[in-house]
Amino acid sequence: MDNLSDTFFALSDPTRRAILLRLSKGDATVGELASPFEMSAPAITKHLKILERSGLIRKEKDGQLRRCILQEKPLKGASEWLEHYSHFWEGSFAQLDDTLKVLVAEEDAE
Amino acid sequence: MDNLSDTFFALSDPTRRAILLRLSKGDATVGELASPFEMSAPAITKHLKILERSGLIRKEKDGQLRRCILQEKPLKGASEWLEHYSHFWEGSFAQLDDTLKVLVAEEDAE
Repeated sequence: MDNLSDTFFALSDPTRRAILLRLSKGDATVGELASPFEMSAPAITKHLKILERSGLIRKEKDGQLRRCILQEKPLKGASEWLEHYSHFWEGSFAQLDDTLKVLVAEEDAE
Repeated sequence: MDNLSDTFFALSDPTRRAILLRLSKGDATVGELASPFEMSAPAITKHLKILERSGLIRKEKDGQLRRCILQEKPLKGASEWLEHYSHFWEGSFAQLDDTLKVLVAEEDAE
């Protein structure tokens, strides 16, 4: 898979998004990441592997422990891809804004 | 799956992203969408079903044809989710900016 596909796939699971949210508040060990979830260690490890493969997290040795660290680059790439489409919803708002202006003008004219 | 998971999963494939790019330029029939890809009709249909399930496209009957239309709402949802993390890369640029200011100030002082 290409990197953008890997990133979007990694984001397509609520547990993986929750792990990223936790890491956005600071680095955490695998144990700390696993504790809020009622999941087996292998299940969490599988999620972390998918996040690591996409480059969304990296692991760093801290003595006996392995700390997970959020990496912003793939998030930025995904955000930039979506940015190309933002004129669609910004367009919708602009259209709504025009409609509202017409309505206000009509009201003022009465 | 929740809607955000469906959306990110739908975006995790280059063919599906290419279909969305095509639809961002205007509505298209299933045949028009399939023609640039060296893929069987069932393969394209499967991709379109995944896009439809996530709400990224909707189909509309146009006589004998079925037209596909891009829907911006799930793209906006995904973009807003990523937006929460934007302070990470914006933060990195701000930090780089501070570093550059210090370097320039040091150079001026020499």
